[in-house]
Amino acid sequence: MKAYIISIGDELLLGQTVNTNASLIGEKLSNLNIDVTKISVIGDDASVIRDEFNNAWINSDIVLVTGGLGPTHDDVTRNCVVKFFKTNLSLNEDVLKDIIELFAKWEREITDINKDQANVPEIAEVIRNNKGTAPGYWIEKDDKIFVVMPGVPYEMEEMMNSFVIPKILEMGLDKQGLVRRLILNTTGIPESHLFERLGDLEEILGEAKLAFLPNQYGVKLRITVKGEDEETVNNNLIEVEQKIRAKAGRFIFGKNHETLENVVGKLLEKRDLTISVAESCTGGSLANHLTNVSGSSKYFDRGVVSYSNASKVEILKVDEDVIIEHGAVSREVAMQMAEGVRSTSGTDIGVSTTGIMGPTGATTDKPVGLVYIGYCDEKVCTARKVVFGGDRLLNKQRTVQAALDLVRRQVLGISLDD
Amino acid sequence: MKAYIISIGDELLLGQTVNTNASLIGEKLSNLNIDVTKISVIGDDASVIRDEFNNAWINSDIVLVTGGLGPTHDDVTRNCVVKFFKTNLSLNEDVLKDIIELFAKWEREITDINKDQANVPEIAEVIRNNKGTAPGYWIEKDDKIFVVMPGVPYEMEEMMNSFVIPKILEMGLDKQGLVRRLILNTTGIPESHLFERLGDLEEILGEAKLAFLPNQYGVKLRITVKGEDEETVNNNLIEVEQKIRAKAGRFIFGKNHETLENVVGKLLEKRDLTISVAESCTGGSLANHLTNVSGSSKYFDRGVVSYSNASKVEILKVDEDVIIEHGAVSREVAMQMAEGVRSTSGTDIGVSTTGIMGPTGATTDKPVGLVYIGYCDEKVCTARKVVFGGDRLLNKQRTVQAALDLVRRQVLGISLDD
Repeated sequence: MKAYIISIGDELLLGQTVNTNASLIGEKLSNLNIDVTKISVIGDDASVIRDEFNNAWINSDIVLVTGGLGPTHDDVTRNCVVKFFKTNLSLNEDVLKDIIELFAKWEREITDINKDQANVPEIAEVIRNNKGTAPGYWIEKDDKIFVVMPGVPYEMEEMMNSFVIPKILEMGLDKQGLVRRLILNTTGIPESHLFERLGDLEEILGEAKLAFLPNQYGVKLRITVKGEDEETVNNNLIEVEQKIRAKAGRFIFGKNHETLENVVGKLLEKRDLTISVAESCTGGSLANHLTNVSGSSKYFDRGVVSYSNASKVEILKVDEDVIIEHGAVSREVAMQMAEGVRSTSGTDIGVSTTGIMGPTGATTDKPVGLVYIGYCDEKVCTARKVVFGGDRLLNKQRTVQAALDLVRRQVLGISLDD
Repeated sequence: MKAYIISIGDELLLGQTVNTNASLIGEKLSNLNIDVTKISVIGDDASVIRDEFNNAWINSDIVLVTGGLGPTHDDVTRNCVVKFFKTNLSLNEDVLKDIIELFAKWEREITDINKDQANVPEIAEVIRNNKGTAPGYWIEKDDKIFVVMPGVPYEMEEMMNSFVIPKILEMGLDKQGLVRRLILNTTGIPESHLFERLGDLEEILGEAKLAFLPNQYGVKLRITVKGEDEETVNNNLIEVEQKIRAKAGRFIFGKNHETLENVVGKLLEKRDLTISVAESCTGGSLANHLTNVSGSSKYFDRGVVSYSNASKVEILKVDEDVIIEHGAVSREVAMQMAEGVRSTSGTDIGVSTTGIMGPTGATTDKPVGLVYIGYCDEKVCTARKVVFGGDRLLNKQRTVQAALDLVRRQVLGISLDD
């Protein structure tokens, strides 16, 4: 079972939009053991689109197309589908009803160009859209499948979840071959050090495969195991995981799509601990990450984004003299901020960040990228110094990651050393 | 001048990594009037990679490859380059020096697999990497260009900026044809309404082209003008922009890559206004957006993430009885939060958010997606009700966007009506 993804839209070639759709589809298909062999991105040009339809149709078993189904003049995908499959458009009453209802819910007036979206290729089974006006199409021909979905990410995702994936499962297209993947998420160690730490990969892996995927937050380790039966494959995966954990366990914070904020959240909830944060350099991003987790109100009490020195003194009770003596970016202030937010909010843990995110703000003794992260609980009050690079947004993201990892390690009692 | 981008990495096909590299390269090339005709994504498989190299080489003038240059066993791009160009590897002393220095700066021990990265294809001019260990390659042959860069986004971006773009300019490859694009960023109006509001597109556009690019934050309008000379093209672009602004000006907050937080930041700085924020449902994301702007400490004083009711009362001086009577998610509490953060911080403006982000938390009279955004300044204290959907992260992002737009409209004196 080979899949081919086609993403349509000039905005993707021009780099105005990042192609998150292809990643999402790729992930969902690979979870069903369907191999995505290629993703191609092309513009809103009818002849190029039809050529690529042809190319994909010849080289794969299932083609998934997104984009170009909007109501305006620059969307040409529907007509390309009609011509490629030599079919016609006809009005679908269900879709028309969906569109009318959607506009009523939004309390917006419906337009003729939206109504026209209810005209669909006759050959297609319609995929209803409950988050937008463009329906998707499911087409079966010559033992192959051709799926067309809107380019708006959350509309496409809803169609994948509610129609495409269930349909693939129903048709039994996912049963070919047995592959299992596991990702171990690490943070706080560079790729080459992790590689060296693991040592003899052949001994760890046997027949399994391992990929190193570095990004700004850390390195993901992707283990892939193939085999004949479910039990052997799963046991093999567990064995490899255990061997890797034995070598680099302290750096592994979670599996697959687990984020550090999810892991920390679960940990706090399990231990019945509450947390508050005092942010200077991360400017709200640490609180934002923590509150991205549904249910975070159980352990997250409050955050203070103390950008001005006055706010550090007024809300967090930081000693003004300490700021004058050591500077706002210092170990001392980080600790007072963490303790201040902890004591004023009455939470178990207080965490703080203060640093120079750049591109400006460096002094002779404090470079851009210098950060102190404070952590206080009932027993410990400490601060960790880290030095990042010159990119403001990257520095914010890395500081948040390091602060969350500091909480994880402190709560779990894992050494802060490399 | 046709460009072809190849992104290499199983993680891209499996959807574990979103392909931001291709967007960045596409954008930079299109700014130089170089047409990106196709982006293809393939896995770490040597034979597939060499086939795609061949395909791209035949169909374009410049090929840009990213990914698969890392130090570990799963990176095969370097060897594919060697075979495709029938060349050999040889040690580059400059690159070796770079790698040694980088590890010294990080205070990390260097490894043999990193040193091996200094072996580069003989046919290539080396692109130095000052953010990581893998060098890039610039290869010229048969009047065509072949560029290979690492897949780590910030390393690739640095190479594009410091080497590839300057080299393209130096060779005069950007001078073919005259195309100018302008994006007008709108928020607060659906695509079809914007389309109707603009009315007769032929009258507005003449020979220009217009694309509607919707995303969760709003709709981007991309105007494209082609022509013979710079002056005519620019005048044409200005004319189209003015006609669009005459019809939908209040929804347009900025151009091209301007974000709403940048626009609001500039506006506050220009008017010499300061701001503080009190966030419940957005959990720090509003402060985070504001502080993503370099220099934001000039106008951003502080933020309070008042997740618990206690923190609303203690820090923001919200009346506890009002919370009990109207609920934390209410117009009254939104206004008290905005006024509370404004008066306690002494800023000119106070903004607040309170809402039900989901997926849980709905009550009989308050659905998931219900949000109140408060705004107070010296003269006005108001709150705006908005209703979004069921997705937690999307709701947070949309609330931040609506809050920033509320500030923009209030400061500029633009009506809040559609």
